[in-house]
Amino acid sequence: MDNRIKEHAGIIADWSTEMKEDDKVVILAHSEAEELMIALYEEIGKHGAHPTTLYSSNEANRAYLKNFDGEFKTPKHTLTLFREADVVISIKSDVNVKAMNDVPGEVLSEYSKVRKPLSDILQDKRTCLTAFPTNAAAQLADMSLAEYKDFVWNAILRDWQDVHEKQEILKKKMDEAEEVYITGRETELTMSIKGNIGVNSDGKHNLPSGEVYTAPIPDRVDGHILFDKPLIYMGREIEDVKLKFEEGKVVKHSAGSNEELLTNILNTDEGSRKLGELGIGTNRGIKIFTRNMLFDEKMGDTIHLALGKAIKRSVGEDGEGNDSAIHMDIIKDMSKGRVEMDDETVLENGKFIWEM
Amino acid sequence: MDNRIKEHAGIIADWSTEMKEDDKVVILAHSEAEELMIALYEEIGKHGAHPTTLYSSNEANRAYLKNFDGEFKTPKHTLTLFREADVVISIKSDVNVKAMNDVPGEVLSEYSKVRKPLSDILQDKRTCLTAFPTNAAAQLADMSLAEYKDFVWNAILRDWQDVHEKQEILKKKMDEAEEVYITGRETELTMSIKGNIGVNSDGKHNLPSGEVYTAPIPDRVDGHILFDKPLIYMGREIEDVKLKFEEGKVVKHSAGSNEELLTNILNTDEGSRKLGELGIGTNRGIKIFTRNMLFDEKMGDTIHLALGKAIKRSVGEDGEGNDSAIHMDIIKDMSKGRVEMDDETVLENGKFIWEM
Repeated sequence: MDNRIKEHAGIIADWSTEMKEDDKVVILAHSEAEELMIALYEEIGKHGAHPTTLYSSNEANRAYLKNFDGEFKTPKHTLTLFREADVVISIKSDVNVKAMNDVPGEVLSEYSKVRKPLSDILQDKRTCLTAFPTNAAAQLADMSLAEYKDFVWNAILRDWQDVHEKQEILKKKMDEAEEVYITGRETELTMSIKGNIGVNSDGKHNLPSGEVYTAPIPDRVDGHILFDKPLIYMGREIEDVKLKFEEGKVVKHSAGSNEELLTNILNTDEGSRKLGELGIGTNRGIKIFTRNMLFDEKMGDTIHLALGKAIKRSVGEDGEGNDSAIHMDIIKDMSKGRVEMDDETVLENGKFIWEM
Repeated sequence: MDNRIKEHAGIIADWSTEMKEDDKVVILAHSEAEELMIALYEEIGKHGAHPTTLYSSNEANRAYLKNFDGEFKTPKHTLTLFREADVVISIKSDVNVKAMNDVPGEVLSEYSKVRKPLSDILQDKRTCLTAFPTNAAAQLADMSLAEYKDFVWNAILRDWQDVHEKQEILKKKMDEAEEVYITGRETELTMSIKGNIGVNSDGKHNLPSGEVYTAPIPDRVDGHILFDKPLIYMGREIEDVKLKFEEGKVVKHSAGSNEELLTNILNTDEGSRKLGELGIGTNRGIKIFTRNMLFDEKMGDTIHLALGKAIKRSVGEDGEGNDSAIHMDIIKDMSKGRVEMDDETVLENGKFIWEM
């Protein structure tokens, strides 16, 4: 086994999820990630914890959704499994990222609604979303598998304590700031983040990470923005997303491709037209856009906004967070552009406040 | 996809588990069986039910058990998942049947004890244990994969209604009989089955099936028996098992190989030295011993006894069934030998009562 897989499993157990004796652990993985699963079972054994793995197959999910004849419901057996779990480790390991492409958007949207209680529960758990390098992901990133393995593990096997310390500067700005002003290509957007919390994403819930994020006040977003990186939704690319906000709500939208899918996403529920997250990527180790949100949104020259649900831990007691069945990140290149917080520039033309 | 996979999934959904709308379904499978899993997801979708699949990897379980440092406990998250399920489909699909070979027997035995509540729950569910043809299973059966596929699907894709009707004759004998007398090579065994129920295993809980079984009264087994087919335990073969019973309990045992493992199995708990099942195979479609209990115990020329827990549905209100964490089937060739029930011969030299 590639020694980097063992290191990866070690970081997940000791840093990301702080695994301890008697923890009930759930892993979600496709068989492409079986080596990481085996390395994790070794760690789980060493920690005296108890594992169960759910098999994620997009090809099977496609067969299910394409043939579904009934009423979608939150599956109570899966819900109780998550409810009883202490640690949930989700490993992105697609064998074909396009496997869900011919499932109608409205079916995916209906299905995601009944899955909402599952993702709600996870917000109270020690979770880690990570990735295992597959040929499918390598191909999507325009790389060979060997090159992609280097890319993935270079991003993951880092000194996360050091990342944590650097990101504290940005986290504190977010804690204190009330207003955020974003300008860039075809973009002029203001939002309030008053009372909400800057979260230092340092390899705990996302691995890799390298991001600081907070939650916009749902009704306090105004202006327009162009996202120059494509939104990837269930393996489909929605390019050049443009959104116009009034009092927090998307009142106008367009896209260069798959605009209908964007419309479906926005129509999911009451909260899917409002923002749940403002994130700033800080990971200088990720230099290439690979069409994988777990990596892309951490790039140092980008920010991202998420339509839908706010991450619970970014919502302060005096603040407010959006609610929705979805959480859909969209990335904007900031190598040209500026982010100000309460009249202080924290990011300009790709440079952070501590790099200026 | 091989059309036999779709037929296989159809039998599981419609005949074996009688799947219906809103059923909460759990599948257990390794990725080798992904095609059957996909076909099942299509069926589950058509029935308007809700699937979750647990990933069974012996290689991962080995890594877990070899490195375990703590106290084994029944994993509550997995327990609640099973408790909330209506249907549980378990697909044997090993990539390497020897993957657990270097896990110490006492560790396997300790681990199986804490898993007992999981198997107890399954007795009240609509369950189906089936198999998907893999290279590992083909190799174990001394066959190519193509030949083994024919073997597996010839055994599975049958007219189960017809099997059901033929087996009713034997089921009724078991219902009525009080004493069973078994003779054969190095074998002379008497047991009581008074008050217990003959179960017509017709492709519901086991697929393939073709077996009628009941539960011996735990303290009413006396004599000795030689099992001429090897006991397969977690991929290990225990050959030529000989057991001597007094008042239901194994008081003497020996084996031609792996005798220590047999000793560990017998020492699992109070009930592991007593019998939980007497089964008679009737499946004339299975002609070859393939070292796979799901198939072997259904062979028309065999009977089998199980050490450990009685299957709940074979225990009558006026009868009695054994309890244990284990249920370990061992097969005896009956091409030479005789089974009598209350002085009536039901099987002699490989011929059933309806074939004499």
